[in-house]
Amino acid sequence: MREKLLLTFLLILCLLGDAKSQNEGEMPIPTQAQLNWQNAELVAVFHYDLHVFDGKKYNQQQNRVTPMADYNVFNPTKLNTDQWIKAAKEAGCKIAILTATHETGFALYQSDVNPYSLKAVKWRDGKGDIVKDFVESCRKYGVKPGIYIGIRWNSFYGIHDFKVNGEGQFAETRQKHYNRICEGMVEELMSRYGDLAIVWFDGGAHGPEKGGPDVLSVFEKHQSNCIFYHNTQRADIRWGGSESGTVPYPSWGTFPFPFSHSANQDVIFKNNFQLLKEGDPDGKYYMPAMSDAPLRGFNGRHEWFWEPGDEAHVFPLENLVKMYYNSVGHNSSLILGLTPNSDGLMPEPDVKRLKEFGEEIERRFSNPITSTSGVGEKINLKLPKKQKINQIVLMEDIAKGERVRKFTVEGKTKNGWKTIFEGSCIGHKFIHRFDEMEISEVRLRIPESKGEPQLSDVSVYFVNN
Amino acid sequence: MREKLLLTFLLILCLLGDAKSQNEGEMPIPTQAQLNWQNAELVAVFHYDLHVFDGKKYNQQQNRVTPMADYNVFNPTKLNTDQWIKAAKEAGCKIAILTATHETGFALYQSDVNPYSLKAVKWRDGKGDIVKDFVESCRKYGVKPGIYIGIRWNSFYGIHDFKVNGEGQFAETRQKHYNRICEGMVEELMSRYGDLAIVWFDGGAHGPEKGGPDVLSVFEKHQSNCIFYHNTQRADIRWGGSESGTVPYPSWGTFPFPFSHSANQDVIFKNNFQLLKEGDPDGKYYMPAMSDAPLRGFNGRHEWFWEPGDEAHVFPLENLVKMYYNSVGHNSSLILGLTPNSDGLMPEPDVKRLKEFGEEIERRFSNPITSTSGVGEKINLKLPKKQKINQIVLMEDIAKGERVRKFTVEGKTKNGWKTIFEGSCIGHKFIHRFDEMEISEVRLRIPESKGEPQLSDVSVYFVNN
Repeated sequence: MREKLLLTFLLILCLLGDAKSQNEGEMPIPTQAQLNWQNAELVAVFHYDLHVFDGKKYNQQQNRVTPMADYNVFNPTKLNTDQWIKAAKEAGCKIAILTATHETGFALYQSDVNPYSLKAVKWRDGKGDIVKDFVESCRKYGVKPGIYIGIRWNSFYGIHDFKVNGEGQFAETRQKHYNRICEGMVEELMSRYGDLAIVWFDGGAHGPEKGGPDVLSVFEKHQSNCIFYHNTQRADIRWGGSESGTVPYPSWGTFPFPFSHSANQDVIFKNNFQLLKEGDPDGKYYMPAMSDAPLRGFNGRHEWFWEPGDEAHVFPLENLVKMYYNSVGHNSSLILGLTPNSDGLMPEPDVKRLKEFGEEIERRFSNPITSTSGVGEKINLKLPKKQKINQIVLMEDIAKGERVRKFTVEGKTKNGWKTIFEGSCIGHKFIHRFDEMEISEVRLRIPESKGEPQLSDVSVYFVNN
Repeated sequence: MREKLLLTFLLILCLLGDAKSQNEGEMPIPTQAQLNWQNAELVAVFHYDLHVFDGKKYNQQQNRVTPMADYNVFNPTKLNTDQWIKAAKEAGCKIAILTATHETGFALYQSDVNPYSLKAVKWRDGKGDIVKDFVESCRKYGVKPGIYIGIRWNSFYGIHDFKVNGEGQFAETRQKHYNRICEGMVEELMSRYGDLAIVWFDGGAHGPEKGGPDVLSVFEKHQSNCIFYHNTQRADIRWGGSESGTVPYPSWGTFPFPFSHSANQDVIFKNNFQLLKEGDPDGKYYMPAMSDAPLRGFNGRHEWFWEPGDEAHVFPLENLVKMYYNSVGHNSSLILGLTPNSDGLMPEPDVKRLKEFGEEIERRFSNPITSTSGVGEKINLKLPKKQKINQIVLMEDIAKGERVRKFTVEGKTKNGWKTIFEGSCIGHKFIHRFDEMEISEVRLRIPESKGEPQLSDVSVYFVNN
């Protein structure tokens, strides 16, 4: 009888335990790959394709439908992916992505399913494999590699927004074949180069339900700890709704759909991509926004690909810094588009700017006056002495989910507590800069949250702007 | 004064000479390449393409519109072009042609303009060049090489009867690009492998006037002593109107159009290709008919490409011999379609049959009872003794044009002169077999000709049939 009671008691405990974990389970929790992604904060995406070598300005609309006259223009005689990765690393990028294919359809590796690849060119006697070089350089410098795959356009094979251009049986068989090429390339790229941080499909990947290839199952077979971005079935991050390198505030890390924007576009694209930009605190899916921008995006240009005479469009340092505050500081990741030149090197002006940017971010964030972490709805942080501050950084321990819904940061001045910021989302990271205030203590109050707030970092800074 | 007279006299002689050569000029005279071609008599055309390796029956209609699932099936581990050429040579072929590309669009060489080539495959580490191997084997065995180029279909790139399948700007730019690929391939094939006996465009080459590539000018730049077959502007031989390996009698070596059948098809295809088969004795263009047939064309099959289990369709010896009489014996050339297997070797049954065929032709034609040659409308040929004959061979010296329009061959029997054959065309070669007759002399009479008949050979045989 006593044993029966004990068993019943244990059973109740177990059920309670289950109930508790189910409650927590309702909160979208990032996967390890998503945690790694958010922790990376800065990501480089290298764009490289045939038209870098044609000596002309890049014209995307034209390029999508016009095959390259002579693909043997591809001849990066000084190619050095170490130099690329060093440049990205100096900017602070912890992940670097390479366009294994982009809109020409030309593959920067030794594909056995897509003949329009480095096998076709004279460069390196048809034996070049830039994806391999790239991944090896990443490993060498401790940067995590990612691969970008363009299957939406292919000017050579005749693919127009995922579809084979044509009609009748001919188009049907070629569509099937193209889908097989795509699946084959994904198989190659996912299996040959080790663990990847991310695979990024240009414009998403049409799923089989739309007559496209089944790339997701191939991805899942080979990469278990990797960001998948994206198709109609799955996205582990979402597009941030612009290519400005920023997202607005707040930008919640959760989203109501399992895909970024490959479906439901009438809802998702509404109000200038509002949902992509802002996310949804009640969204069932953890899927933080990325903030992408090409480094050569200044002063009216917006160029992902190298072209001659474009150096003046490298963003000035101050623009990049602002971008950082409005991306990384808004619970997003900043993805900088870098593009090596026709010699196969990152151009000097770009390398210089990346280094300056990395140093500037280091200067701004490596020396907090003081920091703390904590659990609960109130966290106090005393400064060693009363002093001027003009920047705070807050981080949730998002491994436990984005919990904070409403918060206030206050500073204790000689005239008492003053509000520094009233906010909503913290997520992976919230950065706020403000006019300097002399304070002795900072107080974070969280009146609204889903579950107990878990702050992994509360730091205050004084930065010379 | 005397010098003036002499000069006038010389001038008149020159003018007379010119007048004479102009008269002769009215008669279509073969080029050296055409003479070489007609003298070759027996030609092998090797068909080899991706689908040889798919383990399936060849289905041309399907194959034209369906890209090969995996082009790495192309793996002829025992490839030996020496063995191919030896087999063709043993059959008596003096020219051997290889399909550098056929309807898949896959190129059997190291193309720098068409990535869908041997560069793309794993076989020989992407360094294979079967065109090179083939031409080298030809040179080694004293067989003249020719190249066959298929640009009419391309299941990979999406070419349907010369046209890019598709619409709008996309199709337009891809058509331009495809034309450039074609011109580039012709440039490569005409310039890399030395002098060729023939270049053969599958189904002809669309000229620029039909929106196709300009291959003729590329050909002319590189090959000055080579058969061009064919486009709307030029054909140096014509298709014989069937793929039976025969032409009817008579089959004149002259034709009314400069092209074979790339234009005026309402006239040229009339009455089951009558004009192609028979030619036109008044035609302004020297353009003899070819008689093509695949070696594996027996008993209801008609297969240019190797496929498993097709050995039974190798033509029996007697069919090949009959073909010879009705092609080479009819002023045409016999073009045998040979196809190596997926190991890269000519299959043993085919090799055996070719050898038998070569030996049989040798047996039938290498030992004339007696031969002569001559000029004029009557040629007599006395036999060493009265004996049985059952075969005659007549040849015009076609370097001087096809002159004979009507002829009679008679044999002097114990009962006087008996007609053996009353004919019209002789051309390069006329062979006639007949029931044995005992004769002591043969008489060739030519009541109708254009210019003085020029017979390079009149031979009589007795052959055990």
